[in-house]
Amino acid sequence: MSKITEQTIQDINIQFYKAFESLSLERMEQVWKHSDDVVCVHPGWDLFRGWTAVRESWMTIFQNTERIQFIITNAKVRAFENIVAVVVCLENIETIINQDKIRIGAIATNIFERQRIVRNDEDEWLMIHHHGSPVSNYMPPNVSV
Amino acid sequence: MSKITEQTIQDINIQFYKAFESLSLERMEQVWKHSDDVVCVHPGWDLFRGWTAVRESWMTIFQNTERIQFIITNAKVRAFENIVAVVVCLENIETIINQDKIRIGAIATNIFERQRIVRNDEDEWLMIHHHGSPVSNYMPPNVSV
Repeated sequence: MSKITEQTIQDINIQFYKAFESLSLERMEQVWKHSDDVVCVHPGWDLFRGWTAVRESWMTIFQNTERIQFIITNAKVRAFENIVAVVVCLENIETIINQDKIRIGAIATNIFERQRIVRNDEDEWLMIHHHGSPVSNYMPPNVSV
Repeated sequence: MSKITEQTIQDINIQFYKAFESLSLERMEQVWKHSDDVVCVHPGWDLFRGWTAVRESWMTIFQNTERIQFIITNAKVRAFENIVAVVVCLENIETIINQDKIRIGAIATNIFERQRIVRNDEDEWLMIHHHGSPVSNYMPPNVSV
C-alpha cells in the first residue's frame, strides 16, 4: 500500500473541480465512486444520495450552466490511515447566469476513498461525498480565473 | 479493537445534538476532539478551524440562543475501518429568535474519529468535523420536538 501524500489528495481534489469546469458528465463520472452510498449536496439545493441520483444532479447542472470556473483556496487535507481523505476548501466561483457574470463563494467538504483496482493492482482515490454550502458576506480573492 | 456498529455512531451523533440543545459549552467540549485541525461550518456562517476557534463559535451561539431543539431524520452512517465515521443527516430545528418560534432545516455532514484513551485502554469517538448548511424549500416533518 503506497503512502499517500497531502499533495496527492490536493491534486485529486483539483481534478474534481476541473471535471466540474469541463461541464463533461464523462469526466465527472471518472471522479466519483459509482456506489449507492455516495452523497452530494449542492449549495442551496437538496441532498442527493446514491450514484444514480448524484449523476443526474450533475447532468442537470451541466445542462443549465454556460460556463463556470473555480479558484480553490484554503484547501486543507486530513487523511486517515490511507483509506479516507477529507478536504475542506473555499470555492471561489465565477459563473455566467443569463449572460451575467457573477462571483460567488462556497465552502466545500469533499471526501475521497481509496479503491483497489483489481485489473492493474493499483490504487485510485474516488469521491464519495461532496457538500457545498453558500458563504455569507463573500469577498472574492484579488485574482481572476 | 472493538468492532463499532452503526448504532454506536448513530448514538454518538445524537449526543452532539443533545449537547447543542443543552446550550452547555461543557457538554459540547466533551463531544469534540480538541485539536488544531477540527473544522466547523455553521449554516450561513463562516468556517472555523481548530478547537479554539470552534469552541468560541459554540460559545457565541449558546450566548445568543434562548432555546433550540432538534429532530434528526435520515441519518446515514458510513464507517471506515473502525477509524473514521461520516454521518449525513437532516436537522429539523425548532428555535426561538426574538420570542418568535421558527422552524428551519439544515443538512449536516458530521465526522467522528476514534480515539484511544490511554488511561483506561478504551476507545471513544470524537467529533472532528461539522458542516451544516441551510435547506431550501424546507418542509418540517409532521412531528414536534
